[in-house]
Amino acid sequence: MSKTIAVIGTGLMGAPMARNLLAGGYTVHAWNRTRAKAEAIDDATVCDTVPEAVAGADFVLTMLSDGPAVDGYIFDTAVTDAMANGATWLDMSSAKPEEARRQAAHLASLGFGHLDAPVSGGTKGAEGASLAIMVGGDAATFAKAEPVFDAMGRPVHVGPSGSGQLSKLANQAIVAVTIGAVAEATLLLEKGGADPTAVRAALKGGFADSVILQQHGARMSDRNWVPGGLSKFQVKDLDNLLAEAGGLDIHLPVAQHVRDRFQRFVADMEGGDLDHSGLFLELLDQNGLKP
Amino acid sequence: MSKTIAVIGTGLMGAPMARNLLAGGYTVHAWNRTRAKAEAIDDATVCDTVPEAVAGADFVLTMLSDGPAVDGYIFDTAVTDAMANGATWLDMSSAKPEEARRQAAHLASLGFGHLDAPVSGGTKGAEGASLAIMVGGDAATFAKAEPVFDAMGRPVHVGPSGSGQLSKLANQAIVAVTIGAVAEATLLLEKGGADPTAVRAALKGGFADSVILQQHGARMSDRNWVPGGLSKFQVKDLDNLLAEAGGLDIHLPVAQHVRDRFQRFVADMEGGDLDHSGLFLELLDQNGLKP
Repeated sequence: MSKTIAVIGTGLMGAPMARNLLAGGYTVHAWNRTRAKAEAIDDATVCDTVPEAVAGADFVLTMLSDGPAVDGYIFDTAVTDAMANGATWLDMSSAKPEEARRQAAHLASLGFGHLDAPVSGGTKGAEGASLAIMVGGDAATFAKAEPVFDAMGRPVHVGPSGSGQLSKLANQAIVAVTIGAVAEATLLLEKGGADPTAVRAALKGGFADSVILQQHGARMSDRNWVPGGLSKFQVKDLDNLLAEAGGLDIHLPVAQHVRDRFQRFVADMEGGDLDHSGLFLELLDQNGLKP
Repeated sequence: MSKTIAVIGTGLMGAPMARNLLAGGYTVHAWNRTRAKAEAIDDATVCDTVPEAVAGADFVLTMLSDGPAVDGYIFDTAVTDAMANGATWLDMSSAKPEEARRQAAHLASLGFGHLDAPVSGGTKGAEGASLAIMVGGDAATFAKAEPVFDAMGRPVHVGPSGSGQLSKLANQAIVAVTIGAVAEATLLLEKGGADPTAVRAALKGGFADSVILQQHGARMSDRNWVPGGLSKFQVKDLDNLLAEAGGLDIHLPVAQHVRDRFQRFVADMEGGDLDHSGLFLELLDQNGLKP
């Protein structure tokens, strides 16, 4: 008999992930606050409540906005009382490592497994079942859940509970700082009279190359700030990163610097809903230059 | 009849580049300060002096330590007097954009062409004829030299004189800042109990991925500081970048920050001859942590 996955949160990411689980032969119980979004998933069993969705499920998969949203179900006894013996919770939302650890401990106390498994790759990765899935939790639980993740992307076990979220934060920090670097390279090339588009082509495949250089660099050259990744979420991610670093008693100066710049872009320059490549605008502004 | 290239400077980079020109059917006049290094290139005509090397050559290719070293030949009348009518100078050394512009102007006044064409890809790229070649100068001169560059790698015309060097500086800035980002991600993951090696595998192909994440990240995890790229050269490159930015009246805050950190690593921590991934040691030191 095929395993059953309760998918809680079938938004832009969760819906294509649920479809890939169905394509992989799993039974899917779908729940979403806006029921129509769950109903749009062919072959899923749409549920009226979260307890109804988790009942009889081997895995509960959450894809929600943040840790507190996930807390709302994990710490709801109506939900955990409805869960099947031996069920495992897969939280694929992006959250704080400390939230993941707390959730894992709570579920363990009730006899359930938990993995924190945030993703990278966006809606494209979700649709193409090519998400990078960073998984924190114990190895035996990971082994049990690995086939489920395989239906949605490429899972890697990165350490104990919280490590998946920690990896996601590291990912976001590298992305944010690389945007900062590409913005400065782009400005230098523009002011110095070189053609940034040609330079990006020249650097392709080399040490300075990255998706950020090619995609976000092109957005900077084109002055195209249509998101993509929102600058306000970049601030949230960097704040989570720095809070975690603070808890570990470490100082991350480049991430801190770039966070302050994104914060300025969001708070003082109305950049929150622009793509995070818009940090280029903040750099121009710092230099007294017009977009 | 095959074209003749005078290769001035047949060191770690110049020697394999000369071999690839020979393999591409060109005649090579080789000159090196240490003659034995030129003699090691089979089928090259080894010359005793630079004027002897440039005599009769269609292209003069310099691969030297910096701009002043190239100046030593471009502004030497014994050299330019010996050059053939219509010869073109290809400076593939890494130098300052202003040096390239000055050299180009001087050679133009004597009726010679000039392209600044620094490379990225290291000795591996030189040996495999896969160098990224960033070329500044006028389009007609580039078109004439393109087949010569093709024998050594992948040339891209990036703008007028100086633009090749400007692109190389942009490349170096992105590399340096990305190292700073990867160092912070690595420290966070280590301190937070995740496995950086697994995380690098998880992030492969995604937005945070780069050669720097994979190669330099691995060096940080392994505490392996064997160069690779020397930290003292990273300071030199960043100083050149910031001088150029200053001349253009722009401020590049992330590059400035990372430059100051590399400078501290070189000046106060004896890091100059260590690989540039050693910036991780500077981050540990800032955090009062042992390597």
